[in-house]
Amino acid sequence: MTLQPWQQLAAAKRESILNAIPPKWRIKGPIPSPEEQRDVTGPYIQQFLTPREIEITETDVVGILERTTTGKWTAVEVTEAFCHRAALAHQLVNCLHEIIFDDALATAQALDAHFVKTSQPIGPLHGLPVSLKDQFHIRGVETTMGYVGWINTFQGLPNDPRSRVFESQLVTDLRAAGAILYCKTSVPMSLMSGETVNNIITYTTNPKNRLLSSGGSSGGEGALIALGGSPGGFGTDIGGSIRVPAAFNGLFGIRPSSGRMPYQGAANSMDGQNTILSVIGPLARSAGGLMALFKGVLGTGPWLRDPLVLEIPWREEVERETRELVRGEPKALAFGVMYHDGVIGLQPPIERALRIVEETVRGLGHTVVTWTPPSHQIAVDLAERAYSLDGGADVAYHLTLSGEERAAQVILNLAGTQKTAMEVAALNVEKREYQKRYMDYWNSTADLTGTGRPVDAVIYPCAPQASTVPKRLATVGYTSFINVLDYTSVVIPVTHADKTVDVVREQEVFLSELDEKAQREYDPDTYDGAPAGLQIFGRRLQEEKILVLAEYLAEKVKAASTSP
Amino acid sequence: MTLQPWQQLAAAKRESILNAIPPKWRIKGPIPSPEEQRDVTGPYIQQFLTPREIEITETDVVGILERTTTGKWTAVEVTEAFCHRAALAHQLVNCLHEIIFDDALATAQALDAHFVKTSQPIGPLHGLPVSLKDQFHIRGVETTMGYVGWINTFQGLPNDPRSRVFESQLVTDLRAAGAILYCKTSVPMSLMSGETVNNIITYTTNPKNRLLSSGGSSGGEGALIALGGSPGGFGTDIGGSIRVPAAFNGLFGIRPSSGRMPYQGAANSMDGQNTILSVIGPLARSAGGLMALFKGVLGTGPWLRDPLVLEIPWREEVERETRELVRGEPKALAFGVMYHDGVIGLQPPIERALRIVEETVRGLGHTVVTWTPPSHQIAVDLAERAYSLDGGADVAYHLTLSGEERAAQVILNLAGTQKTAMEVAALNVEKREYQKRYMDYWNSTADLTGTGRPVDAVIYPCAPQASTVPKRLATVGYTSFINVLDYTSVVIPVTHADKTVDVVREQEVFLSELDEKAQREYDPDTYDGAPAGLQIFGRRLQEEKILVLAEYLAEKVKAASTSP
Repeated sequence: MTLQPWQQLAAAKRESILNAIPPKWRIKGPIPSPEEQRDVTGPYIQQFLTPREIEITETDVVGILERTTTGKWTAVEVTEAFCHRAALAHQLVNCLHEIIFDDALATAQALDAHFVKTSQPIGPLHGLPVSLKDQFHIRGVETTMGYVGWINTFQGLPNDPRSRVFESQLVTDLRAAGAILYCKTSVPMSLMSGETVNNIITYTTNPKNRLLSSGGSSGGEGALIALGGSPGGFGTDIGGSIRVPAAFNGLFGIRPSSGRMPYQGAANSMDGQNTILSVIGPLARSAGGLMALFKGVLGTGPWLRDPLVLEIPWREEVERETRELVRGEPKALAFGVMYHDGVIGLQPPIERALRIVEETVRGLGHTVVTWTPPSHQIAVDLAERAYSLDGGADVAYHLTLSGEERAAQVILNLAGTQKTAMEVAALNVEKREYQKRYMDYWNSTADLTGTGRPVDAVIYPCAPQASTVPKRLATVGYTSFINVLDYTSVVIPVTHADKTVDVVREQEVFLSELDEKAQREYDPDTYDGAPAGLQIFGRRLQEEKILVLAEYLAEKVKAASTSP
Repeated sequence: MTLQPWQQLAAAKRESILNAIPPKWRIKGPIPSPEEQRDVTGPYIQQFLTPREIEITETDVVGILERTTTGKWTAVEVTEAFCHRAALAHQLVNCLHEIIFDDALATAQALDAHFVKTSQPIGPLHGLPVSLKDQFHIRGVETTMGYVGWINTFQGLPNDPRSRVFESQLVTDLRAAGAILYCKTSVPMSLMSGETVNNIITYTTNPKNRLLSSGGSSGGEGALIALGGSPGGFGTDIGGSIRVPAAFNGLFGIRPSSGRMPYQGAANSMDGQNTILSVIGPLARSAGGLMALFKGVLGTGPWLRDPLVLEIPWREEVERETRELVRGEPKALAFGVMYHDGVIGLQPPIERALRIVEETVRGLGHTVVTWTPPSHQIAVDLAERAYSLDGGADVAYHLTLSGEERAAQVILNLAGTQKTAMEVAALNVEKREYQKRYMDYWNSTADLTGTGRPVDAVIYPCAPQASTVPKRLATVGYTSFINVLDYTSVVIPVTHADKTVDVVREQEVFLSELDEKAQREYDPDTYDGAPAGLQIFGRRLQEEKILVLAEYLAEKVKAASTSP
């Protein structure tokens, strides 16, 4: 069969990524199929690593920084270990778009030389390898954002002088903080998908269960970090693109409110659509890792270089006050809990995860409030309309550059009707009114908590599923309403789908046809082993508070699950 | 001549405002013409007041609050004095749309009773009369925003249950802080004008020189406060609507960055246009007054009730650090100074005002940097395009409700073409890129200041004119670029046009045809006595810093002008 030009281009790019892996790090022999080897984390990937590499790559962000900022570990050794493991990860689940190992090792050498000379780290992220979703421009490599038409261009523009030279602000800021950039991770074409699929790397599978998806759009981040190929990295989220991969891969991830992390100079879809802004946030294997990455960027003062970033440094006093609350008496806190969105109910693994957290909260003596806010469906509809303001023209244009096929999982109608300026304005008003109603509801819970405050945070799924079979993601509505509200949301890992307990429910009544479809689609054996995470969300710009609460809940959930 | 129905409606509303003034406060006999009595401030208006009323109404916000929050003055006495003086002000310059004296006095009585009972103020603004631009809904009265078609409606909607009942959030917050709402002030129809003209109150003239304009769109606020009819009040600003009236009336005024003051539930034009958001800010006769009003609102936690307000309380530490800087050594600070926008130069009074401030800064030993940013004309053009995204449809619709004539001073084309969603997005990108360029320029001045920091603030006109003859406002470009940048800007009074020194320049070379027109239009005699103010602007969300710097500069300018 003759390949189309775009298929040839994609295949060549796909090969070039594999070829960038040093031969010594290539897996000999065929990679087992997902059916043969679902789970490639833990012992499976460890077989290719030395004990020292395993020690380094299984240390979390906080542990690594304790060592690299004090000279206990060199940046070179740490970087090399993560490069090796990332190379393995890519061969197992297709999670990389760009490999920058040589440049990363050169940076690591420079950092080590600096430390030898000064006995000081150059910044709070000194020597930490950090992975980035393929929306961020890093010198030396290109950015495709999953589009074949962006290969050998700058965001689709041929012969642009910025190509392979220009760096996004987040990249500059991370470098200033001492981070080492060594790879870029896979995304779905257009970013507008809860699965990571494109014509270059094909599909990023879930490392815990390769029959399933790594989520999207920051699916490469999710898969790479879950495999230990990165201690932490940055994704973006306009409808769930940080939270869905975090939940599907058993990670922590934060969708901050807009205006905290610098988006300046990053590639994006529908740039300038400002009804709902995409935001940047870290993913990592610990809440502490999220905090370190978040604080590391804030510490550079990104508001001095990105006009959309707010001058809000990390608020130590909020962190401190929240830590006092979680150390306090029973009933110090109040959490909202909500089991479904009224349209699609939870498959058994996620329902169980939510019960685990709810019981943990009750067991700690805190108040649980049944969360009955203004319908999330209103927000889901607002979000869909915001994503579709241009009628799909931007994404259609970038697909047309190469003539490539669209993935079925892209959630946009690419032949829609563009809206008018007055319709944009009307949508902005509708959105604000929904935000106001939700805010009023939140305030009203002060009467129910017994703490003197409204609910501190809400515990809610990221999706009704623990990951998804390809093309079977039931909805992004469990995450996109948060983008309408511009709330802070932190994902925590809770448990894993377990075919022995998460059996098919006897169920004859459903919330909707979509619910029936989603429930019937659930198969305990297929989903067995998939991570089941949840989001803990708070009000706008409450990153410090929600990170502390998420860390606290995750620790307590873990302690409960490991106690005899 | 038979009046059109809209003219009858407007005349009846105009009469009803006058009729709401108690007979005892009506000026007997005819009001002198502007030609007979240009300046109605000071002795002119004082002739109608008792010495005690003069004492109260000529005390600034800070002075009043010192007394009303400690029981030295009763809220009733203070309120009554301002009601009286506001009634006089309206008869002299047409600055009120609504009179709420009875309700205000009832509120004052309740506050006094509270104080008698508890010996405590109910909030930081206890007993302070505060005037509001006629965009804010206050129970008991209506909101016309200058539209005849809004008379007897709620924002143009007949029979709406919110009419005369619903209150804007700012109103609720001010009440919670203890403020007393006693009047609403005039605005131009549509708000999109630098003069205050509508078919209801006709035209709000400048109290210092009634041949001239009070500015707009918060022109009623400017005129009322300048006449002592209010100690301070709130306007809004999408292109200069706080700053132009503040400058034209010799007042202080702040345009904060978006997200600090609550706009929730206020009337507006082109609601939902979010490329450039209109913002709320106070006007007053002292910088301390601005701070008290700003802090008073922030102290209520408006971010809990308005989804667009940022959770940024008044930053005491920024205020403190800035106060340390201004108390410090010479060369502690660096100011940018820019004399014109490249298109329309300054008429002599404003040029002199700018020289006064520049010389004061130099005399204090601070650094002056010639400000050469990315062209302001780019921003002015972006702003005009943002205001015109709907092709003028919103304003045209509200004019059509009554069939009233538009004022020539409305700056919009009401028969323009509506833009598309993609054009809106492209404009948002252009705006962000301009903001980024300006930011980079600002950062670059760190090399020029000698302080180790970039320039602290920039001194710049609000308009090339010291007020304007009706229909002769040359441009709003001296203010609208700030709205594109979303910067903090505080207006300070500097001097007054003086026909003996601000003579016509011998000038044969002009910046442009518009400049030539503006310079030829200047007439020393006509403008004699008009206030000449300037803006001190800082970066985004720098309200605490810029308020302190503005207070400092205004004090030093005043000290220099009154020293022998």
